[in-house]
Amino acid sequence: MNVDFVDSAAVQDLLDRASGVRTEGGDARIKAITRDLIEAVMRAIVKYDIDESEFWRAITFFQNGAPEFGLIAPGVGIEHFLDLYMDAKDADAGLTGGTPRTIEGPLYVEGAPLVEGEVNLTDDADDTGTLIMNGSVRGPDGEPVGNAIVHVWHANSKGFYSHFDPTGEQTPFNNRRRIRVDSDGRYSFRSRMPNGYSVPPGGATDRLMSTLGRHGNRPAHVHFFIEAPGYRTLTTQINFGDDPFAADDFAFGTREGLLPVPNRQGDSASIAFDFRLQRATTEKDEGFSSRTRATA
Amino acid sequence: MNVDFVDSAAVQDLLDRASGVRTEGGDARIKAITRDLIEAVMRAIVKYDIDESEFWRAITFFQNGAPEFGLIAPGVGIEHFLDLYMDAKDADAGLTGGTPRTIEGPLYVEGAPLVEGEVNLTDDADDTGTLIMNGSVRGPDGEPVGNAIVHVWHANSKGFYSHFDPTGEQTPFNNRRRIRVDSDGRYSFRSRMPNGYSVPPGGATDRLMSTLGRHGNRPAHVHFFIEAPGYRTLTTQINFGDDPFAADDFAFGTREGLLPVPNRQGDSASIAFDFRLQRATTEKDEGFSSRTRATA
Repeated sequence: MNVDFVDSAAVQDLLDRASGVRTEGGDARIKAITRDLIEAVMRAIVKYDIDESEFWRAITFFQNGAPEFGLIAPGVGIEHFLDLYMDAKDADAGLTGGTPRTIEGPLYVEGAPLVEGEVNLTDDADDTGTLIMNGSVRGPDGEPVGNAIVHVWHANSKGFYSHFDPTGEQTPFNNRRRIRVDSDGRYSFRSRMPNGYSVPPGGATDRLMSTLGRHGNRPAHVHFFIEAPGYRTLTTQINFGDDPFAADDFAFGTREGLLPVPNRQGDSASIAFDFRLQRATTEKDEGFSSRTRATA
Repeated sequence: MNVDFVDSAAVQDLLDRASGVRTEGGDARIKAITRDLIEAVMRAIVKYDIDESEFWRAITFFQNGAPEFGLIAPGVGIEHFLDLYMDAKDADAGLTGGTPRTIEGPLYVEGAPLVEGEVNLTDDADDTGTLIMNGSVRGPDGEPVGNAIVHVWHANSKGFYSHFDPTGEQTPFNNRRRIRVDSDGRYSFRSRMPNGYSVPPGGATDRLMSTLGRHGNRPAHVHFFIEAPGYRTLTTQINFGDDPFAADDFAFGTREGLLPVPNRQGDSASIAFDFRLQRATTEKDEGFSSRTRATA
Protein backbone atom coordinates (compact mmCIF):
# COMPACT_ATOMS: atom_id res chain seq x y z
CA MET A 1 0.00 0.00 0.00
CA ASN A 2 1.16 3.53 -0.77
CA VAL A 3 2.07 5.98 1.99
CA ASP A 4 -0.62 8.25 0.48
CA PHE A 5 -3.01 6.21 2.61
CA VAL A 6 -1.98 8.48 5.49
CA ASP A 7 -3.26 11.44 3.44
CA SER A 8 -6.74 9.90 3.18
CA ALA A 9 -9.61 11.87 4.73
CA ALA A 10 -10.24 9.18 7.35
CA VAL A 11 -6.65 9.22 8.61
CA GLN A 12 -6.27 12.99 8.49
CA ASP A 13 -9.51 13.28 10.45
CA LEU A 14 -8.20 10.77 12.98
CA LEU A 15 -5.00 12.83 13.29
CA ASP A 16 -6.99 16.01 13.89
CA ARG A 17 -9.11 14.34 16.55
CA ALA A 18 -6.23 12.46 18.18
CA SER A 19 -4.02 15.54 18.49
CA GLY A 20 -6.89 17.74 19.62
CA VAL A 21 -6.08 20.42 17.05
CA ARG A 22 -9.76 21.16 16.48
CA THR A 23 -10.71 21.35 20.17
CA GLU A 24 -10.47 24.45 22.39
CA GLY A 25 -8.36 24.02 25.59
CA GLY A 26 -4.93 22.42 25.88
CA ASP A 27 -1.60 23.60 24.50
CA ALA A 28 -1.72 24.53 20.79
CA ARG A 29 2.03 24.04 20.35
CA ILE A 30 2.08 20.55 21.85
CA LYS A 31 -1.00 19.64 19.79
CA ALA A 32 0.80 20.60 16.57
CA ILE A 33 4.01 18.77 17.52
CA THR A 34 2.04 15.70 18.60
CA ARG A 35 0.10 15.66 15.32
CA ASP A 36 3.34 15.72 13.32
CA LEU A 37 4.95 12.95 15.35
CA ILE A 38 1.89 10.66 15.25
CA GLU A 39 1.70 11.17 11.51
CA ALA A 40 5.40 10.30 11.16
CA VAL A 41 4.78 7.02 13.03
CA MET A 42 1.78 6.28 10.78
CA ARG A 43 3.85 6.92 7.65
CA ALA A 44 6.52 4.54 8.93
CA ILE A 45 3.83 1.91 9.62
CA VAL A 46 2.61 2.03 6.01
CA LYS A 47 6.03 2.52 4.36
CA TYR A 48 7.46 -0.54 6.14
CA ASP A 49 4.16 -2.46 6.38
CA ILE A 50 4.54 -2.74 10.16
CA ASP A 51 1.91 -5.10 11.53
CA GLU A 52 0.32 -5.20 14.97
CA SER A 53 2.83 -7.69 16.32
CA GLU A 54 5.82 -5.59 15.30
CA PHE A 55 4.23 -2.36 16.53
CA TRP A 56 3.52 -3.79 19.98
CA ARG A 57 6.99 -5.26 20.13
CA ALA A 58 8.34 -1.72 19.69
CA ILE A 59 6.03 -0.41 22.42
CA THR A 60 7.22 -3.16 24.76
CA PHE A 61 10.82 -2.25 23.97
CA PHE A 62 10.32 1.41 24.82
CA GLN A 63 8.26 0.58 27.90
CA ASN A 64 10.93 -1.68 29.36
CA GLY A 65 13.73 0.53 28.12
CA ALA A 66 12.20 3.77 29.36
CA PRO A 67 14.74 4.48 32.10
CA GLU A 68 17.39 4.56 29.38
CA PHE A 69 15.82 7.30 27.26
CA GLY A 70 18.69 9.50 28.53
CA LEU A 71 21.14 7.16 26.76
CA ILE A 72 18.96 6.37 23.75
CA ALA A 73 18.70 10.09 22.90
CA PRO A 74 22.47 10.52 22.43
CA GLY A 75 22.82 7.00 20.98
CA VAL A 76 20.42 7.75 18.13
CA GLY A 77 22.17 11.07 17.51
CA ILE A 78 19.36 13.37 18.60
CA GLU A 79 21.38 14.95 21.41
CA HIS A 80 24.22 15.75 18.99
CA PHE A 81 21.63 17.00 16.52
CA LEU A 82 20.49 19.54 19.12
CA ASP A 83 24.11 20.81 19.20
CA LEU A 84 24.29 21.04 15.41
CA TYR A 85 20.96 22.89 15.43
CA MET A 86 22.08 25.36 18.12
CA ASP A 87 25.35 25.90 16.22
CA ALA A 88 23.42 26.67 13.03
CA LYS A 89 21.09 29.07 14.83
CA ASP A 90 24.11 30.75 16.45
CA ALA A 91 25.79 31.13 13.06
CA ASP A 92 22.62 32.74 11.68
CA ALA A 93 22.70 35.16 14.61
CA GLY A 94 26.41 35.90 14.18
CA LEU A 95 27.24 34.16 17.48
CA THR A 96 30.42 32.34 16.56
CA GLY A 97 33.74 31.62 18.24
CA GLY A 98 34.64 30.12 21.55
CA THR A 99 35.05 26.53 22.67
CA PRO A 100 32.59 24.21 20.85
CA ARG A 101 29.60 22.97 22.80
CA THR A 102 28.91 19.27 23.02
CA ILE A 103 26.38 16.98 24.66
CA GLU A 104 25.80 17.03 28.41
CA GLY A 105 24.82 13.37 28.80
CA PRO A 106 22.50 12.16 31.56
CA LEU A 107 24.96 11.95 34.47
CA TYR A 108 25.43 15.44 35.91
CA VAL A 109 24.54 15.79 39.60
CA GLU A 110 23.75 19.14 41.20
CA GLY A 111 25.45 20.33 44.35
CA ALA A 112 29.06 19.12 44.00
CA PRO A 113 31.56 20.77 46.42
CA LEU A 114 32.60 24.30 45.43
CA VAL A 115 36.41 24.43 45.66
CA GLU A 116 39.38 26.51 44.52
CA GLY A 117 43.18 26.38 44.19
CA GLU A 118 44.94 23.09 43.44
CA VAL A 119 41.92 20.85 43.35
CA ASN A 120 41.65 17.09 43.87
CA LEU A 121 38.47 15.65 42.33
CA THR A 122 38.78 12.09 43.60
CA ASP A 123 37.77 10.92 47.08
CA ASP A 124 37.86 7.15 46.55
CA ALA A 125 40.75 4.74 45.97
CA ASP A 126 41.00 3.71 42.32
CA ASP A 127 43.66 1.50 40.75
CA THR A 128 44.48 3.74 37.79
CA GLY A 129 46.81 6.55 36.78
CA THR A 130 46.59 10.24 37.59
CA LEU A 131 44.95 12.83 35.37
CA ILE A 132 46.31 16.36 35.67
CA MET A 133 44.37 19.07 33.89
CA ASN A 134 44.75 22.83 33.89
CA GLY A 135 44.22 25.91 31.82
CA SER A 136 42.25 29.11 31.80
CA VAL A 137 38.80 30.48 31.09
CA ARG A 138 38.85 33.47 28.74
CA GLY A 139 36.36 35.70 26.97
CA PRO A 140 36.05 36.55 23.27
CA ASP A 141 38.79 39.21 23.42
CA GLY A 142 41.19 36.94 25.29
CA GLU A 143 40.36 38.57 28.62
CA PRO A 144 40.61 36.26 31.68
CA VAL A 145 37.23 35.48 33.22
CA GLY A 146 38.11 35.69 36.90
CA ASN A 147 34.63 34.93 38.22
CA ALA A 148 33.98 31.72 36.28
CA ILE A 149 32.91 28.46 37.86
CA VAL A 150 34.07 25.24 36.18
CA HIS A 151 31.73 22.31 36.86
CA VAL A 152 33.64 19.10 36.18
CA TRP A 153 32.52 15.49 36.36
CA HIS A 154 33.94 12.23 35.04
CA ALA A 155 33.82 8.45 35.43
CA ASN A 156 36.18 6.31 37.48
CA SER A 157 38.52 3.71 35.97
CA LYS A 158 35.62 1.25 35.58
CA GLY A 159 33.66 3.80 33.53
CA PHE A 160 31.15 4.39 36.36
CA TYR A 161 29.99 7.76 37.71
CA SER A 162 29.36 8.43 41.39
CA HIS A 163 25.58 8.48 42.16
CA PHE A 164 25.04 6.16 39.17
CA ASP A 165 27.50 3.38 40.05
CA PRO A 166 25.80 -0.04 39.89
CA THR A 167 28.47 -1.47 42.24
CA GLY A 168 27.51 1.12 44.88
CA GLU A 169 31.23 1.58 45.65
CA GLN A 170 31.69 5.32 45.13
CA THR A 171 31.11 7.98 47.76
CA PRO A 172 28.86 10.92 46.86
CA PHE A 173 30.44 13.47 44.50
CA ASN A 174 33.54 11.35 43.82
CA ASN A 175 35.09 12.84 40.65
CA ARG A 176 32.65 15.78 40.78
CA ARG A 177 33.54 19.35 41.73
CA ARG A 178 32.62 22.94 41.04
CA ILE A 179 35.91 24.85 40.72
CA ARG A 180 36.10 28.60 41.27
CA VAL A 181 38.90 29.89 38.96
CA ASP A 182 41.50 32.33 40.23
CA SER A 183 41.55 36.04 39.32
CA ASP A 184 43.46 35.21 36.13
CA GLY A 185 40.74 32.80 35.12
CA ARG A 186 42.96 29.77 35.80
CA TYR A 187 41.86 26.33 37.02
CA SER A 188 43.92 23.29 37.97
CA PHE A 189 42.87 19.84 39.13
CA ARG A 190 44.09 16.30 39.47
CA SER A 191 42.06 13.12 39.76
CA ARG A 192 42.18 9.36 39.25
CA MET A 193 42.17 8.71 35.50
CA PRO A 194 38.76 7.98 33.94
CA ASN A 195 38.24 5.26 31.39
CA GLY A 196 35.68 5.13 28.62
CA TYR A 197 32.54 3.15 29.17
CA SER A 198 29.90 1.17 27.38
CA VAL A 199 26.16 1.41 27.86
CA PRO A 200 24.75 -1.07 30.44
CA PRO A 201 25.04 -4.59 28.96
CA GLY A 202 21.66 -6.06 28.03
CA GLY A 203 19.85 -2.77 28.59
CA ALA A 204 17.61 -0.98 26.10
CA THR A 205 20.40 1.10 24.58
CA ASP A 206 22.68 -1.92 24.26
CA ARG A 207 19.92 -3.94 22.58
CA LEU A 208 19.10 -1.04 20.25
CA MET A 209 22.75 -0.56 19.30
CA SER A 210 23.13 -4.30 18.57
CA THR A 211 20.03 -4.23 16.38
CA LEU A 212 21.52 -1.28 14.50
CA GLY A 213 24.83 -3.13 14.06
CA ARG A 214 26.52 -0.53 16.26
CA HIS A 215 28.46 -0.54 19.54
CA GLY A 216 27.70 1.43 22.70
CA ASN A 217 31.17 2.69 23.68
CA ARG A 218 32.41 6.14 24.57
CA PRO A 219 36.08 7.18 24.74
CA ALA A 220 37.48 8.36 28.10
CA HIS A 221 36.25 11.91 28.66
CA VAL A 222 35.69 14.71 31.16
CA HIS A 223 32.47 16.77 31.28
CA PHE A 224 32.27 20.50 31.88
CA PHE A 225 29.82 23.30 32.41
CA ILE A 226 31.52 26.70 32.47
CA GLU A 227 29.46 29.56 33.84
CA ALA A 228 30.32 33.17 34.60
CA PRO A 229 28.22 36.34 34.96
CA GLY A 230 28.08 38.20 31.66
CA TYR A 231 29.09 35.12 29.65
CA ARG A 232 27.16 32.40 27.92
CA THR A 233 27.08 29.13 29.85
CA LEU A 234 29.09 26.48 27.97
CA THR A 235 28.19 22.78 28.04
CA THR A 236 31.09 20.75 26.75
CA GLN A 237 33.49 17.86 27.36
CA ILE A 238 36.96 16.85 26.32
CA ASN A 239 37.53 13.33 25.02
CA PHE A 240 41.01 11.81 25.08
CA GLY A 241 42.39 12.15 21.56
CA ASP A 242 44.38 8.90 21.85
CA ASP A 243 41.44 6.73 22.99
CA PRO A 244 40.55 3.85 20.61
CA PHE A 245 37.00 5.24 20.41
CA ALA A 246 38.07 8.88 19.90
CA ALA A 247 36.80 8.83 16.32
CA ASP A 248 33.91 6.43 16.95
CA ASP A 249 31.91 7.63 19.96
CA PHE A 250 28.48 5.94 20.12
CA ALA A 251 27.02 9.20 21.50
CA PHE A 252 28.51 11.51 18.82
CA GLY A 253 29.89 13.72 21.62
CA THR A 254 33.46 14.00 20.26
CA ARG A 255 34.07 17.15 18.24
CA GLU A 256 36.98 18.88 16.55
CA GLY A 257 38.65 21.15 19.09
CA LEU A 258 37.58 18.90 21.98
CA LEU A 259 39.98 15.99 21.46
CA PRO A 260 43.24 16.89 23.26
CA VAL A 261 45.88 14.14 23.28
CA PRO A 262 47.09 13.71 26.88
CA ASN A 263 50.79 14.07 27.59
CA ARG A 264 51.46 10.65 29.17
CA GLN A 265 54.40 10.11 31.51
CA GLY A 266 54.55 6.90 33.56
CA ASP A 267 51.07 6.46 34.99
CA SER A 268 50.12 10.11 34.78
CA ALA A 269 48.59 12.03 31.90
CA SER A 270 48.50 15.81 31.61
CA ILE A 271 46.09 17.87 29.57
CA ALA A 272 46.37 21.64 29.15
CA PHE A 273 43.06 23.03 27.94
CA ASP A 274 41.79 26.61 27.74
CA PHE A 275 38.11 27.40 27.54
CA ARG A 276 36.94 30.37 25.51
CA LEU A 277 33.44 31.68 26.32
CA GLN A 278 31.02 33.77 24.28
CA ARG A 279 29.58 36.91 25.80
CA ALA A 280 25.96 36.60 26.99
CA THR A 281 23.46 38.48 24.84
CA THR A 282 20.35 37.56 26.83
CA GLU A 283 19.72 36.59 30.43
CA LYS A 284 18.88 33.06 29.26
CA ASP A 285 22.47 32.72 27.99
CA GLU A 286 23.74 32.84 31.57
CA GLY A 287 21.64 29.91 32.78
CA PHE A 288 21.37 26.21 32.08
CA SER A 289 18.75 24.41 30.03
CA SER A 290 15.89 23.32 32.25
CA ARG A 291 16.67 19.65 31.61
CA THR A 292 15.82 17.54 34.65
CA ARG A 293 19.04 16.67 36.50
CA ALA A 294 19.84 14.42 39.42
CA THR A 295 20.25 15.91 42.86
CA ALA A 296 22.18 14.12 45.58
CA MET B 1 15.57 28.20 10.50
CA ASN B 2 14.20 26.15 7.63
CA VAL B 3 13.48 22.42 7.97
CA ASP B 4 15.89 21.97 5.04
CA PHE B 5 18.57 22.06 7.74
CA VAL B 6 17.77 18.38 8.30
CA ASP B 7 18.69 17.73 4.66
CA SER B 8 22.20 19.16 5.18
CA ALA B 9 25.12 16.80 4.62
CA ALA B 10 26.12 16.93 8.30
CA VAL B 11 22.69 15.89 9.55
CA GLN B 12 22.15 13.24 6.88
CA ASP B 13 25.57 11.82 7.73
CA LEU B 14 24.63 11.81 11.42
CA LEU B 15 21.40 9.97 10.55
CA ASP B 16 23.31 7.36 8.56
CA ARG B 17 25.75 6.79 11.40
CA ALA B 18 23.14 6.89 14.16
CA SER B 19 20.86 4.38 12.47
CA GLY B 20 23.74 2.14 11.45
CA VAL B 21 22.54 1.95 7.84
CA ARG B 22 26.11 1.96 6.55
CA THR B 23 27.42 -0.69 8.94
CA GLU B 24 27.31 -4.47 8.42
CA GLY B 25 25.52 -6.47 11.19
CA GLY B 26 22.24 -5.68 12.85
CA ASP B 27 18.71 -5.70 11.39
CA ALA B 28 18.42 -3.80 8.09
CA ARG B 29 14.66 -3.30 8.49
CA ILE B 30 14.92 -1.82 12.01
CA LYS B 31 17.80 0.39 10.85
CA ALA B 32 15.66 1.87 8.08
CA ILE B 33 12.63 2.38 10.35
CA THR B 34 14.83 3.92 13.06
CA ARG B 35 16.41 6.31 10.55
CA ASP B 36 12.98 7.52 9.41
CA LEU B 37 11.71 8.03 12.94
CA ILE B 38 14.84 9.86 14.16
CA GLU B 39 14.61 12.10 11.11
CA ALA B 40 10.94 12.83 11.85
CA VAL B 41 11.88 13.90 15.39
CA MET B 42 14.65 16.12 14.00
CA ARG B 43 12.25 17.75 11.54
CA ALA B 44 9.82 18.47 14.38
CA ILE B 45 12.69 19.99 16.42
CA VAL B 46 13.51 22.45 13.64
CA LYS B 47 9.93 23.12 12.49
CA TYR B 48 8.81 24.01 16.02
CA ASP B 49 12.20 25.35 17.17
CA ILE B 50 12.23 22.91 20.10
CA ASP B 51 15.07 23.79 22.46
CA GLU B 52 17.01 21.53 24.82
CA SER B 53 14.75 22.28 27.76
CA GLU B 54 11.60 21.36 25.87
CA PHE B 55 13.17 18.25 24.36
CA TRP B 56 14.30 16.90 27.73
CA ARG B 57 10.93 17.72 29.22
CA ALA B 58 9.41 15.42 26.59
CA ILE B 59 11.93 12.68 27.39
CA THR B 60 11.10 12.98 31.09
CA PHE B 61 7.40 12.73 30.25
CA PHE B 62 7.84 9.52 28.28
CA GLN B 63 10.23 8.07 30.83
CA ASN B 64 7.82 8.58 33.71
CA GLY B 65 4.83 7.74 31.57
CA ALA B 66 6.33 4.63 30.06
CA PRO B 67 4.07 2.09 31.80
CA GLU B 68 1.14 3.81 30.06
CA PHE B 69 2.35 3.38 26.47
CA GLY B 70 -0.45 0.80 26.14
CA LEU B 71 -2.97 3.61 26.78
CA ILE B 72 -1.08 6.36 24.95
CA ALA B 73 -1.07 4.28 21.73
CA PRO B 74 -4.89 4.15 21.50
CA GLY B 75 -5.22 7.67 22.94
CA VAL B 76 -3.18 9.20 20.14
CA GLY B 77 -5.13 7.19 17.57
CA ILE B 78 -2.32 4.89 16.46
CA GLU B 79 -4.10 1.71 17.57
CA HIS B 80 -7.22 2.72 15.59
CA PHE B 81 -4.94 3.64 12.69
CA LEU B 82 -3.66 0.05 12.67
CA ASP B 83 -7.30 -1.06 12.22
CA LEU B 84 -7.87 1.40 9.37
CA TYR B 85 -4.65 0.18 7.77
CA MET B 86 -5.59 -3.50 8.09
CA ASP B 87 -9.06 -2.70 6.68
CA ALA B 88 -7.48 -0.97 3.69
CA LYS B 89 -5.10 -3.86 3.06
CA ASP B 90 -8.01 -6.30 3.37
CA ALA B 91 -10.05 -4.28 0.86
CA ASP B 92 -7.10 -4.36 -1.58
CA ALA B 93 -6.98 -8.14 -1.16
CA GLY B 94 -10.76 -8.51 -1.59
CA LEU B 95 -11.15 -9.59 2.05
CA THR B 96 -14.33 -7.77 3.01
CA GLY B 97 -17.42 -8.56 5.04
CA GLY B 98 -17.90 -9.80 8.54
CA THR B 99 -18.03 -8.04 11.87
CA PRO B 100 -15.69 -5.01 11.92
CA ARG B 101 -12.48 -5.33 13.87
CA THR B 102 -11.60 -2.81 16.52
CA ILE B 103 -8.81 -2.20 19.01
CA GLU B 104 -7.86 -4.80 21.58
CA GLY B 105 -6.67 -2.39 24.28
CA PRO B 106 -4.02 -3.36 26.84
CA LEU B 107 -6.17 -5.33 29.33
CA TYR B 108 -6.63 -8.86 27.99
CA VAL B 109 -5.37 -11.63 30.28
CA GLU B 110 -4.58 -15.12 28.99
CA GLY B 111 -5.97 -18.22 30.62
CA ALA B 112 -9.55 -17.26 31.57
CA PRO B 113 -11.85 -20.22 32.42
CA LEU B 114 -13.15 -22.13 29.38
CA VAL B 115 -16.93 -22.54 29.85
CA GLU B 116 -20.10 -23.36 27.90
CA GLY B 117 -23.89 -23.18 28.13
CA GLU B 118 -25.56 -20.38 30.09
CA VAL B 119 -22.48 -18.59 31.26
CA ASN B 120 -22.01 -16.25 34.21
CA LEU B 121 -18.94 -13.99 33.79
CA THR B 122 -18.97 -12.35 37.20
CA ASP B 123 -17.57 -13.87 40.38
CA ASP B 124 -17.54 -10.79 42.63
CA ALA B 125 -20.35 -8.77 44.19
CA ASP B 126 -20.94 -5.51 42.34
CA ASP B 127 -23.66 -2.96 43.04
CA THR B 128 -24.86 -2.54 39.46
CA GLY B 129 -27.41 -3.95 37.02
CA THR B 130 -27.27 -7.16 35.01
CA LEU B 131 -25.97 -7.42 31.47
CA ILE B 132 -27.45 -10.21 29.38
CA MET B 133 -25.84 -10.85 26.03
CA ASN B 134 -26.37 -13.55 23.46
CA GLY B 135 -26.19 -14.32 19.79
CA SER B 136 -24.36 -16.52 17.35
CA VAL B 137 -21.09 -16.88 15.52
CA ARG B 138 -21.50 -17.40 11.80
CA GLY B 139 -19.33 -17.66 8.72
CA PRO B 140 -19.44 -15.69 5.48
CA ASP B 141 -22.25 -17.82 4.02
CA GLY B 142 -24.34 -17.59 7.18
CA GLU B 143 -23.23 -21.04 8.33
CA PRO B 144 -23.08 -21.51 12.11
CA VAL B 145 -19.51 -21.88 13.40
CA GLY B 146 -20.01 -24.61 15.96
CA ASN B 147 -16.40 -24.85 17.07
CA ALA B 148 -15.83 -21.16 17.86
CA ILE B 149 -14.44 -19.87 21.12
CA VAL B 150 -15.61 -16.45 22.28
CA HIS B 151 -13.08 -14.72 24.54
CA VAL B 152 -14.92 -12.03 26.49
CA TRP B 153 -13.64 -9.49 29.01
CA HIS B 154 -15.06 -6.29 30.48
CA ALA B 155 -14.73 -3.83 33.37
CA ASN B 156 -16.76 -3.81 36.57
CA SER B 157 -19.14 -0.99 37.54
CA LYS B 158 -16.20 1.17 38.65
CA GLY B 159 -14.57 0.84 35.24
CA PHE B 160 -11.81 -1.44 36.58
CA TYR B 161 -10.66 -4.76 35.07
CA SER B 162 -9.67 -7.77 37.15
CA HIS B 163 -5.85 -8.19 37.28
CA PHE B 164 -5.52 -4.41 36.69
CA ASP B 165 -7.77 -3.13 39.51
CA PRO B 166 -5.93 -0.49 41.60
CA THR B 167 -8.28 -1.22 44.53
CA GLY B 168 -7.17 -4.86 44.52
CA GLU B 169 -10.78 -5.89 45.15
CA GLN B 170 -11.45 -8.23 42.24
CA THR B 171 -10.70 -11.94 42.20
CA PRO B 172 -8.70 -13.33 39.28
CA PHE B 173 -10.65 -13.61 36.00
CA ASN B 174 -13.69 -11.74 37.32
CA ASN B 175 -15.63 -10.69 34.18
CA ARG B 176 -13.33 -12.78 31.98
CA ARG B 177 -14.25 -16.06 30.27
CA ARG B 178 -13.60 -18.12 27.17
CA ILE B 179 -16.96 -19.41 25.97
CA ARG B 180 -17.28 -22.50 23.77
CA VAL B 181 -20.32 -21.91 21.55
CA ASP B 182 -22.93 -24.67 21.02
CA SER B 183 -23.22 -26.70 17.82
CA ASP B 184 -25.42 -23.97 16.33
CA GLY B 185 -22.69 -21.41 17.00
CA ARG B 186 -24.69 -19.80 19.81
CA TYR B 187 -23.29 -18.14 22.95
CA SER B 188 -25.12 -16.69 25.95
CA PHE B 189 -23.82 -14.97 29.07
CA ARG B 190 -24.84 -12.73 31.89
CA SER B 191 -22.66 -10.55 34.09
CA ARG B 192 -22.67 -7.50 36.34
CA MET B 193 -23.03 -4.43 34.12
CA PRO B 194 -19.78 -2.68 33.15
CA ASN B 195 -19.41 1.07 33.18
CA GLY B 196 -17.16 3.23 31.03
CA TYR B 197 -13.88 4.39 32.47
CA SER B 198 -11.36 7.15 32.29
CA VAL B 199 -7.60 6.77 32.08
CA PRO B 200 -5.82 6.84 35.48
CA PRO B 201 -6.10 10.38 36.90
CA GLY B 202 -2.79 12.22 36.91
CA GLY B 203 -1.08 9.53 34.84
CA ALA B 204 0.82 10.07 31.60
CA THR B 205 -2.20 9.52 29.35
CA ASP B 206 -4.37 11.82 31.45
CA ARG B 207 -1.71 14.55 31.36
CA LEU B 208 -1.26 14.11 27.61
CA MET B 209 -5.01 14.28 26.99
CA SER B 210 -5.30 17.46 29.10
CA THR B 211 -2.46 19.05 27.17
CA LEU B 212 -4.25 18.17 23.94
CA GLY B 213 -7.50 19.68 25.25
CA ARG B 214 -9.08 16.22 25.20
CA HIS B 215 -10.65 13.86 27.74
CA GLY B 216 -9.65 10.29 28.55
CA ASN B 217 -13.08 8.57 28.74
CA ARG B 218 -14.36 5.43 27.09
CA PRO B 219 -18.02 4.39 26.87
CA ALA B 220 -19.13 1.16 28.60
CA HIS B 221 -18.00 -1.74 26.41
CA VAL B 222 -17.30 -5.45 26.18
CA HIS B 223 -14.18 -6.89 24.50
CA PHE B 224 -14.07 -9.99 22.32
CA PHE B 225 -11.71 -12.26 20.50
CA ILE B 226 -13.54 -14.83 18.35
CA GLU B 227 -11.47 -17.73 17.12
CA ALA B 228 -12.41 -20.91 15.25
CA PRO B 229 -10.42 -23.36 13.11
CA GLY B 230 -10.70 -22.37 9.46
CA TYR B 231 -11.78 -18.81 10.25
CA ARG B 232 -9.92 -15.57 10.70
CA THR B 233 -9.50 -14.56 14.34
CA LEU B 234 -11.58 -11.44 15.05
CA THR B 235 -10.51 -8.79 17.58
CA THR B 236 -13.45 -6.54 18.39
CA GLN B 237 -15.64 -4.98 21.05
CA ILE B 238 -19.17 -3.69 21.39
CA ASN B 239 -19.70 -0.28 22.96
CA PHE B 240 -23.09 0.62 24.42
CA GLY B 241 -24.84 2.79 21.82
CA ASP B 242 -26.65 4.83 24.50
CA ASP B 243 -23.53 5.73 26.51
CA PRO B 244 -22.75 9.47 26.72
CA PHE B 245 -19.31 8.76 25.23
CA ALA B 246 -20.58 6.44 22.46
CA ALA B 247 -19.69 9.04 19.81
CA ASP B 248 -16.64 10.44 21.62
CA ASP B 249 -14.40 7.57 22.71
CA PHE B 250 -10.89 8.80 23.64
CA ALA B 251 -9.44 5.56 22.22
CA PHE B 252 -11.31 5.70 18.86
CA GLY B 253 -12.49 2.12 19.47
CA THR B 254 -16.19 2.72 18.68
CA ARG B 255 -17.13 1.85 15.13
CA GLU B 256 -20.29 1.64 13.03
CA GLY B 257 -21.77 -1.83 13.42
CA LEU B 258 -20.32 -2.17 16.94
CA LEU B 259 -22.64 0.19 18.85
CA PRO B 260 -25.72 -1.84 19.85
CA VAL B 261 -28.20 0.00 22.05
CA PRO B 262 -29.02 -2.24 25.04
CA ASN B 263 -32.64 -3.15 25.69
CA ARG B 264 -32.98 -1.81 29.26
CA GLN B 265 -35.65 -3.18 31.60
CA GLY B 266 -35.44 -2.32 35.30
CA ASP B 267 -31.82 -2.85 36.28
CA SER B 268 -31.05 -5.27 33.49
CA ALA B 269 -29.92 -4.60 29.95
CA SER B 270 -30.01 -7.09 27.09
CA ILE B 271 -27.93 -7.06 23.95
CA ALA B 272 -28.40 -9.46 21.07
CA PHE B 273 -25.30 -9.50 18.90
CA ASP B 274 -24.22 -11.86 16.14
CA PHE B 275 -20.63 -12.18 15.07
CA ARG B 276 -19.79 -12.84 11.44
CA LEU B 277 -16.29 -14.21 10.73
CA GLN B 278 -14.20 -14.18 7.58
CA ARG B 279 -12.76 -17.44 6.34
CA ALA B 280 -9.02 -17.89 7.01
CA THR B 281 -6.85 -17.64 3.91
CA THR B 282 -3.50 -18.23 5.63
CA GLU B 283 -2.45 -20.01 8.80
CA LYS B 284 -1.58 -16.62 10.36
CA ASP B 285 -5.26 -15.64 10.06
CA GLU B 286 -6.17 -18.27 12.64
CA GLY B 287 -3.82 -16.91 15.31
CA PHE B 288 -3.48 -13.76 17.36
CA SER B 289 -1.02 -10.94 16.86
CA SER B 290 2.10 -11.59 18.92
CA ARG B 291 1.42 -8.54 21.09
CA THR B 292 2.68 -9.11 24.63
CA ARG B 293 -0.30 -9.90 26.87
CA ALA B 294 -0.69 -10.33 30.59
CA THR B 295 -0.79 -13.79 32.06
CA ALA B 296 -2.34 -14.47 35.44
